[in-house]
Amino acid sequence: MFSKETYIQRRAALRNRLSSGIVLFLGNIDNPINFKDNCYPFRQDSTFLYYFGLSVPFIAAIIDLDEDKSIVFGDELSIDDIVWMGQQETLQAKCAKSGVAQTSPSGSLSTFIQKAIDSKRTIHFLPPYQSSSKIRLSELLQVPVSNLKPSVSLIKAVVAQRSIKEPQEITEIEKALQVATEMHLLAMRLGNIGTKEYEIVNAMQHYAGDHNCSFAYPPIVTRHGEILHNHHYHNTFGKGDMVLNDSGVETSLGYASDLTRTFPADTTFTPLQRDMYQIVLDSFESSRNLLQPGVSFKSIHLHATEILVQGLKDIGLMRGNVADAVAAHAHSLFFQCGLGHMMGLDVHDMEDLGEQYVGYTDENPKDTTTFGIKSLRLGKELEAGYVLTIEPGIYIIPELIDIWQAENKLAEFINYDKLKEFRHFGGIRIEDNFLITPEGYRLLGPELIKSVEDIENYKQAYA
Amino acid sequence: MFSKETYIQRRAALRNRLSSGIVLFLGNIDNPINFKDNCYPFRQDSTFLYYFGLSVPFIAAIIDLDEDKSIVFGDELSIDDIVWMGQQETLQAKCAKSGVAQTSPSGSLSTFIQKAIDSKRTIHFLPPYQSSSKIRLSELLQVPVSNLKPSVSLIKAVVAQRSIKEPQEITEIEKALQVATEMHLLAMRLGNIGTKEYEIVNAMQHYAGDHNCSFAYPPIVTRHGEILHNHHYHNTFGKGDMVLNDSGVETSLGYASDLTRTFPADTTFTPLQRDMYQIVLDSFESSRNLLQPGVSFKSIHLHATEILVQGLKDIGLMRGNVADAVAAHAHSLFFQCGLGHMMGLDVHDMEDLGEQYVGYTDENPKDTTTFGIKSLRLGKELEAGYVLTIEPGIYIIPELIDIWQAENKLAEFINYDKLKEFRHFGGIRIEDNFLITPEGYRLLGPELIKSVEDIENYKQAYA
Repeated sequence: MFSKETYIQRRAALRNRLSSGIVLFLGNIDNPINFKDNCYPFRQDSTFLYYFGLSVPFIAAIIDLDEDKSIVFGDELSIDDIVWMGQQETLQAKCAKSGVAQTSPSGSLSTFIQKAIDSKRTIHFLPPYQSSSKIRLSELLQVPVSNLKPSVSLIKAVVAQRSIKEPQEITEIEKALQVATEMHLLAMRLGNIGTKEYEIVNAMQHYAGDHNCSFAYPPIVTRHGEILHNHHYHNTFGKGDMVLNDSGVETSLGYASDLTRTFPADTTFTPLQRDMYQIVLDSFESSRNLLQPGVSFKSIHLHATEILVQGLKDIGLMRGNVADAVAAHAHSLFFQCGLGHMMGLDVHDMEDLGEQYVGYTDENPKDTTTFGIKSLRLGKELEAGYVLTIEPGIYIIPELIDIWQAENKLAEFINYDKLKEFRHFGGIRIEDNFLITPEGYRLLGPELIKSVEDIENYKQAYA
Repeated sequence: MFSKETYIQRRAALRNRLSSGIVLFLGNIDNPINFKDNCYPFRQDSTFLYYFGLSVPFIAAIIDLDEDKSIVFGDELSIDDIVWMGQQETLQAKCAKSGVAQTSPSGSLSTFIQKAIDSKRTIHFLPPYQSSSKIRLSELLQVPVSNLKPSVSLIKAVVAQRSIKEPQEITEIEKALQVATEMHLLAMRLGNIGTKEYEIVNAMQHYAGDHNCSFAYPPIVTRHGEILHNHHYHNTFGKGDMVLNDSGVETSLGYASDLTRTFPADTTFTPLQRDMYQIVLDSFESSRNLLQPGVSFKSIHLHATEILVQGLKDIGLMRGNVADAVAAHAHSLFFQCGLGHMMGLDVHDMEDLGEQYVGYTDENPKDTTTFGIKSLRLGKELEAGYVLTIEPGIYIIPELIDIWQAENKLAEFINYDKLKEFRHFGGIRIEDNFLITPEGYRLLGPELIKSVEDIENYKQAYA
């Protein structure tokens, strides 16, 4: 946990952003895998961690906005619990570290909420993403699950606050990046011809675990880099394959890192891979240099896209005017997703609160329908203190090409004939994490090699 | 998956055990960790795996008992899904492997169930343990979550069927045991003075993953063996410590293994540890020899307990008549749990269906209140085809001793003075997995060393 003062100040800042009523936070529970007592590793809700720091299952908390008071609802261990789970610090002692003096048994939460309902107080809560929280909210508020109405003012207040990272949060993210960087180098050393995808995943997990971290998300380690969220690991890398490794860890306090590198299973890229890799790297370098407060991330996304299109034009896969191609979304045959996203206590920071609120504004809402841009999670103007990813890529997806080509879609921008040679090319992505500073930006964590030359030298050194 | 015929036959056998109506099976979903798209590893519901073999999230199935027909409800991938997750075999093709000819979109399930409700057909379903299933059932059946009434006849039919393992299921369990056995030997080689608990856990996970398995449950790897379900791994093993390692893996088809060994971090046990270990081992050997059809597992549990009490008497921790001590539950200061449980597609097989139905009978119901015996998950008469664990132990729990001693509880059987010397002794458990055969029993998987001599020799060989 951070200091007691951290949590007290964060809660006070939240109160200042809201008017009156009660803010209800539900912590996460131990989620059953295949029966009640066999559970997935516990992960506390990120907003709960942010305001209370308590990584304890089955608790809830309220902030009374009118009385300036916080209460944590949860139960102390019984002797049966101690027999099965061991003696632990009391909940009260844990709460004291969070600056919360008052705890109350779990069962008393419903009484507390009932009183608030009876006295017609506003009860603010965030959108639940775990089904258990939906049920608990439904029961507490006596509203069907499908009718739960999260508080938009609370969402906006939390997003505003969590978006600007404190120095101690940056330190945690850089801890996560330190481990993730070493983990990626390990993967580069292991990712050779004959290696199985899962062998890399398992070795990375082992490394992360031994360094007090866990995966921040299911890693993507694949010879099919064109599949954006590929969580299958059964393939063996062969000659001519590239390894796409999108993986990051979170620290014990819950802060994420999110890195992607693409490298040859062999010690060198093929000439074609090298050309395509350089296009993605050019897009990466050019767009990251635009990071600074006041610039909209959507404009950087479009810039990155133009660099990709120019490169694909040079290589003969696209044609026509670059700006026109981007305006027509022709690039989305090759770059189907967004340039990046916020990062913090979640790898897609606060995504549970809604991309519209985290990445966009009421004045510039998210495009939720147009293929490609609808997957851009962040579009709004940047502010100092944001932490985000930059991750351009090129993805050659045969099934998507077949659909577009059947309609001869946007053929003025796409050279479908030439594309035939690339059908099984795969995909490339390069991703780092950045902090927006008053002056511009700062790469977070150590530099992880990414030039063609550095990667080939590294592969050769460990061959 | 097993053969198509396997699933067809299993469903036919289930139909034969039930009268009429519809059986509704909900598969599990991808469960969010901290936001909707960041999910825990998918694990299909075990009963769904048993009857359909489909390890696919977000599907459901029905068996129409009156029309002899099965339908799987789920959606084929859209092109957006393919972009993000890659091309996959169609759901229809997957279902064909399960002998299910008819698939229907997810959305049509509610219409199907509504028709069944309208025509007053019985809708059988099993107790939901994941909150998402509770919500889906509540919505489909238009009943509040708290009022869902699972079908007891279905529970009993499923338990009767799944309790008797097919030869191909035994083969899978023995595959899991092959990997778990090697994993335990690895832990014995690593578990030395200076090793951290988590280093063993991470190395085991790596080994299991590289052998196409995953943990069947969160492992217990601890210098505090007295804590029955200890999932904290931050301690370092020191001189004089024992390592208790309770861990098992499941195969890709979902079948579990569950082994425990306790060994010294040093190359030898201390004399006291050796004596206590031998008591547990005597109890283990003596009770496993009683395994055979027709014998109640509760009687074996009581036999194992008597052996433990006799040993504790010999060592001076208990006193008085052994049978009287057991009858008075005096042993539960040292052995707070049960001797074993069923195992199969779940490490505690079918625990989601209710221990009363899996481990007991209407005539001999479970004691759910008496400390100690209330934790015995299996009490009923054994049948050929059952797979179960035998896992006696001795656990010295200071907090429990303090409570008992304050009341001078059962002092005629317990030597509290002598117990002071043992306060920080820790805990010992030995666990293997067995198949009940018509003749008696068979140890499943390879023999994993467990005598004092074999363990010390192994530790010395790798020191």
